[in-house]
Amino acid sequence: MRFFSDNAAAAHPKVMEAISAANRLDTAYDGDGWSKRLDGAFSDLFETQVRALWTTTGTAANCLALAALCPPYRAILCHRDAHIEVDEAGAPGFFTGGAKLVLLDGEGAKVTPGTVAAACDRIRSDVHQVQPAAISITNATEYGLVYRAAEVAALGDLARQRGLKLHMDGARFANALATTGEKSSDVTWRAGVDALSFGFVKNGGLNAECLVLFDTTLSGEIEVRRKQAGHLQSKGRFLAAQILALLENDLWLDNARAANAAARSLAEAAPARLVYPVEANEIFLRATPEEAASLRKQGFDFYDWGPDEIRLVTSWDQQGEAIGQFAAAIAAL
Amino acid sequence: MRFFSDNAAAAHPKVMEAISAANRLDTAYDGDGWSKRLDGAFSDLFETQVRALWTTTGTAANCLALAALCPPYRAILCHRDAHIEVDEAGAPGFFTGGAKLVLLDGEGAKVTPGTVAAACDRIRSDVHQVQPAAISITNATEYGLVYRAAEVAALGDLARQRGLKLHMDGARFANALATTGEKSSDVTWRAGVDALSFGFVKNGGLNAECLVLFDTTLSGEIEVRRKQAGHLQSKGRFLAAQILALLENDLWLDNARAANAAARSLAEAAPARLVYPVEANEIFLRATPEEAASLRKQGFDFYDWGPDEIRLVTSWDQQGEAIGQFAAAIAAL
Amino acid sequence: MRFFSDNAAAAHPKVMEAISAANRLDTAYDGDGWSKRLDGAFSDLFETQVRALWTTTGTAANCLALAALCPPYRAILCHRDAHIEVDEAGAPGFFTGGAKLVLLDGEGAKVTPGTVAAACDRIRSDVHQVQPAAISITNATEYGLVYRAAEVAALGDLARQRGLKLHMDGARFANALATTGEKSSDVTWRAGVDALSFGFVKNGGLNAECLVLFDTTLSGEIEVRRKQAGHLQSKGRFLAAQILALLENDLWLDNARAANAAARSLAEAAPARLVYPVEANEIFLRATPEEAASLRKQGFDFYDWGPDEIRLVTSWDQQGEAIGQFAAAIAAL
Amino acid sequence: MRFFSDNAAAAHPKVMEAISAANRLDTAYDGDGWSKRLDGAFSDLFETQVRALWTTTGTAANCLALAALCPPYRAILCHRDAHIEVDEAGAPGFFTGGAKLVLLDGEGAKVTPGTVAAACDRIRSDVHQVQPAAISITNATEYGLVYRAAEVAALGDLARQRGLKLHMDGARFANALATTGEKSSDVTWRAGVDALSFGFVKNGGLNAECLVLFDTTLSGEIEVRRKQAGHLQSKGRFLAAQILALLENDLWLDNARAANAAARSLAEAAPARLVYPVEANEIFLRATPEEAASLRKQGFDFYDWGPDEIRLVTSWDQQGEAIGQFAAAIAAL
Repeated sequence: MRFFSDNAAAAHPKVMEAISAANRLDTAYDGDGWSKRLDGAFSDLFETQVRALWTTTGTAANCLALAALCPPYRAILCHRDAHIEVDEAGAPGFFTGGAKLVLLDGEGAKVTPGTVAAACDRIRSDVHQVQPAAISITNATEYGLVYRAAEVAALGDLARQRGLKLHMDGARFANALATTGEKSSDVTWRAGVDALSFGFVKNGGLNAECLVLFDTTLSGEIEVRRKQAGHLQSKGRFLAAQILALLENDLWLDNARAANAAARSLAEAAPARLVYPVEANEIFLRATPEEAASLRKQGFDFYDWGPDEIRLVTSWDQQGEAIGQFAAAIAAL
Repeated sequence: MRFFSDNAAAAHPKVMEAISAANRLDTAYDGDGWSKRLDGAFSDLFETQVRALWTTTGTAANCLALAALCPPYRAILCHRDAHIEVDEAGAPGFFTGGAKLVLLDGEGAKVTPGTVAAACDRIRSDVHQVQPAAISITNATEYGLVYRAAEVAALGDLARQRGLKLHMDGARFANALATTGEKSSDVTWRAGVDALSFGFVKNGGLNAECLVLFDTTLSGEIEVRRKQAGHLQSKGRFLAAQILALLENDLWLDNARAANAAARSLAEAAPARLVYPVEANEIFLRATPEEAASLRKQGFDFYDWGPDEIRLVTSWDQQGEAIGQFAAAIAAL
Repeated sequence: MRFFSDNAAAAHPKVMEAISAANRLDTAYDGDGWSKRLDGAFSDLFETQVRALWTTTGTAANCLALAALCPPYRAILCHRDAHIEVDEAGAPGFFTGGAKLVLLDGEGAKVTPGTVAAACDRIRSDVHQVQPAAISITNATEYGLVYRAAEVAALGDLARQRGLKLHMDGARFANALATTGEKSSDVTWRAGVDALSFGFVKNGGLNAECLVLFDTTLSGEIEVRRKQAGHLQSKGRFLAAQILALLENDLWLDNARAANAAARSLAEAAPARLVYPVEANEIFLRATPEEAASLRKQGFDFYDWGPDEIRLVTSWDQQGEAIGQFAAAIAAL
Repeated sequence: MRFFSDNAAAAHPKVMEAISAANRLDTAYDGDGWSKRLDGAFSDLFETQVRALWTTTGTAANCLALAALCPPYRAILCHRDAHIEVDEAGAPGFFTGGAKLVLLDGEGAKVTPGTVAAACDRIRSDVHQVQPAAISITNATEYGLVYRAAEVAALGDLARQRGLKLHMDGARFANALATTGEKSSDVTWRAGVDALSFGFVKNGGLNAECLVLFDTTLSGEIEVRRKQAGHLQSKGRFLAAQILALLENDLWLDNARAANAAARSLAEAAPARLVYPVEANEIFLRATPEEAASLRKQGFDFYDWGPDEIRLVTSWDQQGEAIGQFAAAIAAL
């Protein structure tokens, strides 16, 4: 059984059905009936007027937003372990045309007002040093921690004071909300978030992500940038249909709850081994190479995460017996 | 009935089946079983060792190739009506970081050795003028004309003499080959093509295109650029599966033959109205605004293409009776 | 005697004196006493509040302005023979991060409201085609023609209507004004110009050009871009001092008048040979290769400009006897 | 007396003379007699065939080199306090089109094989993480420390093993060599350096720096990039003449020795206050705000460098009595 990442899991049957149902001629690009429903669907969910643009990768969603939030000669503040810094092949530099990432420290890949303020204060306000333009945070973080609405609001307040924009990489936004039970509006625009990369691929989607713009003045620019970056698919209805299927009846939340529950089961099997509290669907465990090898011999696959540490990620379709067996194997180490 | 573009048609049932069959956990990105079969499948088709990288749009395939073929301070020669110039929102400039398109004239969007050579000769060889690095041609062209292998080879020879790379935008490559009956190898690498954007979306695919690299030394760079541009999907198997389904039993050629046949039917209905010979699946007709309105009133939709001209595009699934009715309506104008 | 270009002439003695006078310790970059006087000096000249930033090349002045006036995904309208298109090695693409130049036709490299409007009208207003953001004109043009204030104002009006910014490449701005006798304010901001690259190097300067911003809201961004592009010299006083010396007592106008007068003398020697009216300091003459060779044999150097055409450029220090001899040689052809 | 930076000092009289001597018509750009002598002069100095290209700023020299050494999708390893990271407004990102700086720790802004190797080893070799392409070191460092030839050679060896290029920012290269007495060839190409930004502005120049390419295959690309970035001045002879004047009779070394001697005098006045050994012409001293204020009251100006630390920089023309007075003032604190 594979616990490498939720990004390779199967698509949910409802998503597959929606794709089939969309398989008829319609207007190209995002002029079709499905794509046109996105704004309304997300505006309902977020209780405010938003613009919602499909993309096919989180990297595209993140970096299209960042390019609109930060000019080529300014900087984006993010955690040292942020996906945009570590795992996107330098996409922020490419999309922005040279903007800089200023890296912040913080437990579990979390950004705090303190680290942001300190980083800003270290930058002399002149033309020689790159001035910050935006903050980007990941929720849930790369280490599976979750921002509460109040935490984001504190960052949002600081952003406003400092004249910075606020972006949220929500590759696992569903997992975060499934844990906190907070409203999606409270942890985003009410807390000062300007743009959210709302992830669906890791949560039952096939290849659709959604960039949700709370600052709707950005949408004109980002629509053009999406096209210019080769991300405007001609049969966009197949992307929109996936997203709508996941939004319907809160399937996205159900999927995330299932993945989170699986993660909790694994975490509870070995609480003393946890490197971070398990707040979403990622588990970081202390395990010697021998222990890791033993688990693999039993048929469980996952990534090593530095020496004596392993990372497990659960997905929406990993439930029941198999999780129980893995939990037992971990407990038995 | 809609004849706006083949890029909004339904996906072929075999493609849908293949997507369903791929809906199980596998390695992420392009490490899955389907993606790994692409190189072999295209190497067989082209009778030489190639690298084949899926993308989701033709713009991405085109511009990833161009970025590897042309540095930021040089130029790409292409037709004035080339898709990369006219309809990709400046993507070549963005992907290359500033390279220039030098525009060529030519009947039916066709590039010839003569126009290329003349354009090169107009450029002084110094640091003040932008020196050419590559030629990009579209086959079939934006006006539905087709390059024969010998025509491409003449361009390829010139490219070699002038130290230029040669890219082919094959958004309708299938339609071109369905017409000429030539071998795909003869019209590409044997004729000097370094990279081909092989289109599937307009020909029965859902959202998969393929960048085929005959110069396989480019593949390392392009794989990184694909990731950096946000085009490396995590569930790449769904793209590879589409492509493999279309390659199997030459479904791609069957689809293109069907679209071409539909186009020929329409063309034969009004040969005197043709602006260009119909060699693929696009028909450009002279028609007054009143005539266009009359066709629309009968339920046929299409684009106006300048004053007194309309463009019809047929697709793989437009056959039989409906085409006959449209042909009759055109003939009756 | 060399008539290749005014860009290689000697610097004026007053400029050399000013450089010497600036050779003492002062604050670095543009914090020195000379640099700080620029805004005031140009505000006086232009009868409005401007920001004036030195650069060392016209390419830098042009492209820093264009990068601030046009985002990476839009276009700049300019003449097909504009220096930014033909002789700056693709600098606009590099500085803007991929913006496109849309090329206009027009006699003597002149842009008119008609050609601008027609070009705009050809661009579909959607995300597939690159939307225009700015117009750039050169005054005097690359063929030595001069825009009158009314002509610029007509372009400025159109720019405003279409939501476009207006940039003037004034590499030979002095020569233009020396001819028209118009006020520098009338041909710039009063006519709708947002930014002017005010050339000094071709007119007695050593290596200082000046970017004059009438839209002073651009200055923050351009100051940062100037630094990021490596154009913020640490001993900026040496640049500012040159410019101030040329502004003092209208030396810039005197120099331009001298160059223009020399050009007129040459033009009057062979009025029938003129390709364009001589309105500044460039003369384009019809001359066979044999005639060109004959002039060269007599010691006069210049560029060929296509077959049977030569270009002569006069500079501020080419006066008197030598010009008379050259004029006689031309007349004697 | 001002000790802010050597970058605002006066130009050396020999430099001023050379500029005056160059004030006559010659071929434009770098086709003049002075510019053409640069390759030879530097080839003699470095005892190997080099290409030497003038620029007007160190930022331009650094970033033109880096753009040729590192593609847009790879990374440059440098010290966290490197000038390219801290004080060039993000120029490396702009010139390379998005390449990343990977930051290294190390005492006194020095890079070592250990920190380079460790940074490389942390980067997974895949398309998700940005792969390194080059190392950039500053000699003398931003804290006034000097690399010996053997230290550079150790970095050069590592670079070769790892497939990395090696760039040296030599804004104070002269000060470094004046201290070590080593040969300029030994600390550069013999140690594996591919490109050197050889600083003259801080060492008696007016506004000329020189990019010296030991890997001469880079020169074609960099000449074009220099033009595209607006750094090809039309009267290049004025830059070349400055550089030649400083090379003549080792004036560059004499100037550096003078600045270094002044720095040593100040350092010796308060050895216990030194934050770093003084190996070039920068002195970092521990001093309370009150002590700093006291020095300023006596007429000495300098930068604060964090709390309880000040930075003094001496220049080629700060000698004799004034230095003695400052040294006495420091000693008396």
